[in-house]
Amino acid sequence: MLKEGERIDDLQLKNLKIIQNPKGFCFGVDAVLLANFAEVKNNAKVLDMGTGTGIIPLILYGKTKAKIIHAMEIQKEVAEMCLRSFNMNNTEDRIKLVTDSILNWQSYYKKHEMDVVLCNPPYKAINSGILNNNDYKTISRHENSATLEDFISTASNLLNSKGKFFMIHRPHRLAEIFEYCTKYRLAVKKLVFVHGKPNKKPNMVLVKAIKEGKGEVLVDAPLYVHNEDGTYTQKIHEIYGEMWTGGF
Amino acid sequence: MLKEGERIDDLQLKNLKIIQNPKGFCFGVDAVLLANFAEVKNNAKVLDMGTGTGIIPLILYGKTKAKIIHAMEIQKEVAEMCLRSFNMNNTEDRIKLVTDSILNWQSYYKKHEMDVVLCNPPYKAINSGILNNNDYKTISRHENSATLEDFISTASNLLNSKGKFFMIHRPHRLAEIFEYCTKYRLAVKKLVFVHGKPNKKPNMVLVKAIKEGKGEVLVDAPLYVHNEDGTYTQKIHEIYGEMWTGGF
Repeated sequence: MLKEGERIDDLQLKNLKIIQNPKGFCFGVDAVLLANFAEVKNNAKVLDMGTGTGIIPLILYGKTKAKIIHAMEIQKEVAEMCLRSFNMNNTEDRIKLVTDSILNWQSYYKKHEMDVVLCNPPYKAINSGILNNNDYKTISRHENSATLEDFISTASNLLNSKGKFFMIHRPHRLAEIFEYCTKYRLAVKKLVFVHGKPNKKPNMVLVKAIKEGKGEVLVDAPLYVHNEDGTYTQKIHEIYGEMWTGGF
Repeated sequence: MLKEGERIDDLQLKNLKIIQNPKGFCFGVDAVLLANFAEVKNNAKVLDMGTGTGIIPLILYGKTKAKIIHAMEIQKEVAEMCLRSFNMNNTEDRIKLVTDSILNWQSYYKKHEMDVVLCNPPYKAINSGILNNNDYKTISRHENSATLEDFISTASNLLNSKGKFFMIHRPHRLAEIFEYCTKYRLAVKKLVFVHGKPNKKPNMVLVKAIKEGKGEVLVDAPLYVHNEDGTYTQKIHEIYGEMWTGGF
């Protein structure tokens, strides 16, 4: 079940567990915030693009009555670990994993078949920063294999009319997020900025967009991770709940 | 000097004073925040589009070494009161007022002659809300005479390459702000959301864009008007300073 360096963490959510590799690949607070930000109706068809450890499908499996939660992951080693997590939890009734690039979506899914598409994509633009190596941390963090525009255009191709797109990204990419969402007919409807502390600039932004939607953008109340005294905020405690005992 | 219902307020800034009509037309916190957000270099040529009471030119006159601060105001009665404020302060060496629509900018200014353009435009889209009457409050609040796109395209026409555009607006118009800025080659470079209190959604957003600029968007630390206990924040005290004794 476990490879060297891996461990099993209890999500404290309907007895679900996840395999992670503390020195290799672990999920972050961003994925947890995204999974909790997403609105998933009963019987929805959902896709998580670039699922990594599979944390988002697992949270949605535990918290929603989605009919099916598809997950794509391009990196074979990460996808293999993710698949072992899914199998360990016996989630094959409602979670299906594909190991491939999101650019090959047409090989697996029908156009406009999804009600909800999520992604927690690489934050760093291609050619930005230093690409030290080709390990899976690098691919998860840089847009080597798919760009922000690829993620947004793929979401648009897969969503039905009025289908919902949920993404978490860095605030400094906001101009591109608006540009590509507009280009691919995803109307940005809600933004939530995530701040380490109330008086710091935000380091993440949650985005909700609706396929062929229209109207105003709601910039909702910010989400602060820590209070000014460094303790976690009530909101973070609510989101994480009893998710795991080792802190986060 | 004063008409019925008007009063003179001391800006507590280099002895500058302003005429307002408490029952008619007064400046708001948004204009003060915008004037303090703007970056105006020595000898800059500046335009304030839709200047209202003239508060923004007066603050910039007191705080910066701009070479010239142009101001446009479409509403004759408001512009007339504004002109009396300018005359009372003897600012004619560096402030010039034009009473006309921004759409007629070519009658007064050369293309690309401005280093800085500011606007605190009407927040409400044309045809939104109820237009009870045609008084100057209505025109100041609704896009009857010029739309958001008009303000942004006019700013672009007047700014030189790398010239700076500063605007305050409502967060719900953010998708349009990005759309029009992109359309008119103004790169959004900084956003500051303004919240009544830290845990409330923002009700204003300060926007800085650069003509023919490029690169990332900085979403800076938020600006909170009140602390959770209802007192004004340190930041607001710093911005307002000793601006006037009657509170704000």
